Amino acid sequence: MEVYLDNNATTVVDPKVYEEMKPFFCEIYGNPNSLHKFGAGTHPKMVEALNFLYEGINAADEDDILITANATESNNTVLKGIWIDKILNGEKKHIITTEVEHPAITATCKFLESQGVAVTYLPVNEEGVLEASSVAEFIKDETALVTVMWANNETGKIFPIKEIGEICREKGVLFHTDATQAIGKVPVDVQDFKVDYLSFSAHKFHGPKGIGGLYVRKGCELTPLLHGGEQMGGKRAGTVDVASMVGMGWAMKLATSTMAIAYEKNHVSKLRDKLENAILELPETIVIGGKENRTPNTTLISIRGVEGESMLWDLNQHGVGASTGSACASEDLEANPVMNAFGSDSELAHTGVRFSLSRFNTVEQIDYAIEVITNAVTRLRGISSSYAYAPSCHKSGL
Amino acid sequence: MEVYLDNNATTVVDPKVYEEMKPFFCEIYGNPNSLHKFGAGTHPKMVEALNFLYEGINAADEDDILITANATESNNTVLKGIWIDKILNGEKKHIITTEVEHPAITATCKFLESQGVAVTYLPVNEEGVLEASSVAEFIKDETALVTVMWANNETGKIFPIKEIGEICREKGVLFHTDATQAIGKVPVDVQDFKVDYLSFSAHKFHGPKGIGGLYVRKGCELTPLLHGGEQMGGKRAGTVDVASMVGMGWAMKLATSTMAIAYEKNHVSKLRDKLENAILELPETIVIGGKENRTPNTTLISIRGVEGESMLWDLNQHGVGASTGSACASEDLEANPVMNAFGSDSELAHTGVRFSLSRFNTVEQIDYAIEVITNAVTRLRGISSSYAYAPSCHKSGL
Repeated sequence: MEVYLDNNATTVVDPKVYEEMKPFFCEIYGNPNSLHKFGAGTHPKMVEALNFLYEGINAADEDDILITANATESNNTVLKGIWIDKILNGEKKHIITTEVEHPAITATCKFLESQGVAVTYLPVNEEGVLEASSVAEFIKDETALVTVMWANNETGKIFPIKEIGEICREKGVLFHTDATQAIGKVPVDVQDFKVDYLSFSAHKFHGPKGIGGLYVRKGCELTPLLHGGEQMGGKRAGTVDVASMVGMGWAMKLATSTMAIAYEKNHVSKLRDKLENAILELPETIVIGGKENRTPNTTLISIRGVEGESMLWDLNQHGVGASTGSACASEDLEANPVMNAFGSDSELAHTGVRFSLSRFNTVEQIDYAIEVITNAVTRLRGISSSYAYAPSCHKSGL
Repeated sequence: MEVYLDNNATTVVDPKVYEEMKPFFCEIYGNPNSLHKFGAGTHPKMVEALNFLYEGINAADEDDILITANATESNNTVLKGIWIDKILNGEKKHIITTEVEHPAITATCKFLESQGVAVTYLPVNEEGVLEASSVAEFIKDETALVTVMWANNETGKIFPIKEIGEICREKGVLFHTDATQAIGKVPVDVQDFKVDYLSFSAHKFHGPKGIGGLYVRKGCELTPLLHGGEQMGGKRAGTVDVASMVGMGWAMKLATSTMAIAYEKNHVSKLRDKLENAILELPETIVIGGKENRTPNTTLISIRGVEGESMLWDLNQHGVGASTGSACASEDLEANPVMNAFGSDSELAHTGVRFSLSRFNTVEQIDYAIEVITNAVTRLRGISSSYAYAPSCHKSGL
């Protein structure tokens, strides 16, 4: 049996989404900007897709949703746009973020620091969550932007976006959130949550890879990251990938409709809990950040004495796909930065395994995964020198 | 009958290309960076695709080809990378380009000018081509980059890239070429032509939209435009769009293999010539830039007394898709900048119609298109006041 439990890294394209994409490769292939029926033939489904995106995050009609290549591009667009519009000209000089953002934020902030921008990386609490009050504390006159993820990719923990949005709006500071791990898992409402910019990526919610979005509230326009043609009013140049845009629209609709949300909560979270509880029955296992206030599909578990990489190898041999952390950084074996932020000692920092489910997982798959995981833990602990020698010093209640 | 003659705007995906893409939506969907079989399952076809890209432009093994969203992103990566690496730090301050580049270059240069960069826009000669000697003339000690298109999107005219490459290499100035309109139409060899950076876009050569490439010669690495995860060694972050990358690889292979080049030359150029010669039999029609040294699929024709937009409307009514110029700028009705650069008077500047063919066009389609075009010219000239009153002052030999 094959069981894919790495849906925070990427997801399978929903067959319904793929059906909607199909005509736009070899049949309806015109350039949307062309003045003939080959181009215009793309418009109805593009408009429909855009409407699904607006509905999915409750954007106002007067706001923009730019179609980008992925959330990485969306995040870079915001951070570098702010740099060019507000900081390079001397108006502002400071950006606030957290220690546990995705590399698309962190690496961009590091780049901006190399260009003289002051960046504050706020720590998270013992549950892995940023406290909204710390944002208020660090906002200064020269702060141009606050950027905080909606939900963490490693732990699934949900951040207090509504409170942070209110603080930023009140203090007159622009607020961006990377909602890549939130869309389709928890309700996302840009108006209610007072968000100015919001990034998302279709392949995290059963849409295709290579397409994402950036919500921009009216009045918060940015210098484009991609200059060029007049696509999207010049705000993001480059021929629109029609097939993928249509796919993203449908993926958003399917992921965010009331039914889907309920489905995720009732079905996916039950499967996640079943898997998690089975693993927690093994001795010396803990959920990083605790069980409260998470996306319904994610658990990050520390299994003492079992190196995450070895665990993945064992699981993979039996057809179960999981992760030690973000796929975007998995080529190096550095300790998971989120676990570091939680203050795990360096031994435990390598023991995290993330399981992230989707609406396509079944009870049978989870039963099989539990069996594979249990066997792997037993085998790996059997050959672990550190576990054999010192099982009792495992931190608890982390 | 429907006849698509706007292949410089975008192309149909080759059915063979689409076949290769299909498994990567709902079957082989893992994240290439993940450490399990779902991720690794993407690797063989990605490696194959990358090899096709290297072969297609004769890149050396030690050079990079970054997978981007499109040529617009590739162009922005080069220009903004040079700005950050060579100009913002005060090392250099000058960029050389031409007056007839695609908006992805021109608009980016305008942005850089707003940031204090000195940009020289070299004019083209009466055939619409940049003369290599003018590049040599304008290179200064403070010149950081020369960027010149390989082939013009409007006229198909081929620029003296080999000579410019030699001049730049000799003078120690970095050289970028936007080869978006050249790939698959004329042989492109980055080593022979001494190119440091080269941009391309899959959807111009029967690959999917939303994917492009940037060749970077070893030693010419740039600060990334997209910071984030470690994809492509951190040089272009963001989850790779596997389906589209595989599609681009196959599109490159099919477009650039010896057979395909011969096919383009022998079949497409014959059809283009047939179409062009039939239109030139109508009085007061000229090929902008002349017939020499063009991509085999393109003709830009000025038809006196016929406004381009009206012509397109008539053609569209009969199922023929063409263009007045670049689709990337077609939402505004400004005169075609290429025709302006050629020095056309303002009346003629609005009379250009571009026909761009592909290997999927047939003789029957061209015969039908000739009939439709001829009828449209007759009808539109019949209701044109300017043509009725002053047919004799048409510039000839332009």
